[in-house]
Amino acid sequence: MPETLADVGEFGLIDRINKLVQREGVEAPRLSLGIGDDAACFRPQDGYELLITCDCVVEGRHYLPKHIDPQDLGRRSMALNISDIGAMGGQPLYALISLGLKNDTPIADVEAMYLGFLSELNPFEASIIGGNLTKSGNGLFIDITLIGEVEIGKMIRRSTAKKGDAILITGYPGQAALGLELLLHAGADEDWSDHPLVRAYNTPTHRAWEGRAVAQAGYATAMIDTSDGLLGDLGHLCEESGVGALLIQEKLPVSDDLIEASEQLDKDPYHAVLGESDDYELIITCEPENVGRIRDLLNSLNKNPVSEVGTVTDASDGIRLTLPDGTTQAMASSGWDHFAK
Amino acid sequence: MPETLADVGEFGLIDRINKLVQREGVEAPRLSLGIGDDAACFRPQDGYELLITCDCVVEGRHYLPKHIDPQDLGRRSMALNISDIGAMGGQPLYALISLGLKNDTPIADVEAMYLGFLSELNPFEASIIGGNLTKSGNGLFIDITLIGEVEIGKMIRRSTAKKGDAILITGYPGQAALGLELLLHAGADEDWSDHPLVRAYNTPTHRAWEGRAVAQAGYATAMIDTSDGLLGDLGHLCEESGVGALLIQEKLPVSDDLIEASEQLDKDPYHAVLGESDDYELIITCEPENVGRIRDLLNSLNKNPVSEVGTVTDASDGIRLTLPDGTTQAMASSGWDHFAK
Repeated sequence: MPETLADVGEFGLIDRINKLVQREGVEAPRLSLGIGDDAACFRPQDGYELLITCDCVVEGRHYLPKHIDPQDLGRRSMALNISDIGAMGGQPLYALISLGLKNDTPIADVEAMYLGFLSELNPFEASIIGGNLTKSGNGLFIDITLIGEVEIGKMIRRSTAKKGDAILITGYPGQAALGLELLLHAGADEDWSDHPLVRAYNTPTHRAWEGRAVAQAGYATAMIDTSDGLLGDLGHLCEESGVGALLIQEKLPVSDDLIEASEQLDKDPYHAVLGESDDYELIITCEPENVGRIRDLLNSLNKNPVSEVGTVTDASDGIRLTLPDGTTQAMASSGWDHFAK
Repeated sequence: MPETLADVGEFGLIDRINKLVQREGVEAPRLSLGIGDDAACFRPQDGYELLITCDCVVEGRHYLPKHIDPQDLGRRSMALNISDIGAMGGQPLYALISLGLKNDTPIADVEAMYLGFLSELNPFEASIIGGNLTKSGNGLFIDITLIGEVEIGKMIRRSTAKKGDAILITGYPGQAALGLELLLHAGADEDWSDHPLVRAYNTPTHRAWEGRAVAQAGYATAMIDTSDGLLGDLGHLCEESGVGALLIQEKLPVSDDLIEASEQLDKDPYHAVLGESDDYELIITCEPENVGRIRDLLNSLNKNPVSEVGTVTDASDGIRLTLPDGTTQAMASSGWDHFAK
């Protein structure tokens, strides 16, 4: 029988987590007081603003427990919060982890989740400074609050895109959506965990380094991450900025893996690229003369593609897509709505 | 049929919440960017450190949905976070609310919860700056992250009590525990919601104003709130400070309401005062010559009692209680363990 929460109790588990965080984590800068008092305490840095975001991952809703191991679940939960800080141009600093756990959750699983959290935080020299544990009768949840910092004047918002700006997208949005489809269609005895699209779904990569670099350089007019899918988040950006967008289908990035999986699943690959998907890529808008500069900057960081996919237009145009035959059609900005259906 | 989340969708609900927060909330100072982007942003104040805490309230675990209305549930969830900031000597500034909601949760209930959050935040000129909504299949949860600030050098920790210090307690710990007992023993057709102890359980009062005043004055050596009960949190304070404690039973504060309810429930009132209870009072330690100063300071704020209940001793003594007959007995620091039993 694996050791469970019922065996060690809340304070026993807190003690185990503290030791793991001290052993495997890094010490974040300017922390006055970490885990262990009524609140954590840190001293902000002159010349910086603070960014704060929270995102929650719920068993059965945002992940399938039989298809993801606890360490990857931890990585994924932290990556999507890091993505939000990066999409503002910020640097992650401190995380608080609120866990809802079942009485029979193995302690080893909780520790593996923390290893996942730390593997995403350590590269930023960010640390876990607090949190909360509670028993949740019916299903685990992981609610993370992440604090970051950004130099005053360097933050990039989603609400500041301008007509005439170019629209860029990093990576291959839609891969996570098809990864999830592959898992849902898998036979009981099939292990798809190493398929690149399943990896894209279970352990998505944030683009926080990229977002930070773009913000530092000052080349972007607006930025958002694609947690609701390309069209959904482009829709948020357009609505908040009071603009429209024209996308060119032929310019949308489509990976070979995605084309292959689309054929296998009998799906339109562009539906995956544009629709709901948990990829955490960045949509960046910029003045046309900065496209090359942003591309060069991001290419200097890694080999992930940066695609110029369209142009910011008038709000009255809404979001439209030019098809390969030259015709243009209006798109619904169908993002990920947690309560729809 | 009341309007539900399934009717308005996630983004519809977010829009409703934003409008309510703008209408009923106050604008917190130094906020660069509130609800509506990938992260919120604020500019910290020179000379201050930032405090951050999170606490989660789960349906069926921390509250009984049939016994508390949504607005009181909101108040209670926020009060316990405010209590944590106050117990460090801090001033609440910004809250992030992460809600796990059921598909059939009435929108009116969610709005009432937000009114409850705001009724606790507004007196501090603190505001809601972000959050997250997710569907939770089996039971509602409210996870709040609260940020506060404290002047550099003024924070009060739980780990700095010294042998010989006096131990003070605010209010009447244990009232919430008996309030819960009254609810659990109530007949199906009885409404106990206005009983003072039930009020103490459902809408506990934080002591953040008191905690802040004590910290500003610099009179305390250590401080903690009683979210785990008097003995439980005194145990945390002693463990972190490396000290013991001697309590005098006759000095423990026992309200008339608590005595009456104890008789009704056939319970020892001191078991309630010392044991697990969700009261959010403050345990304060100080040098003996500062007892009168702290009492005067807190009496100038309100009429809540401040009781000197014992003395900080050597760690090797553990926590002991002197009974009315003059004998002294060792106490187990039995706090609230979420996974015990």
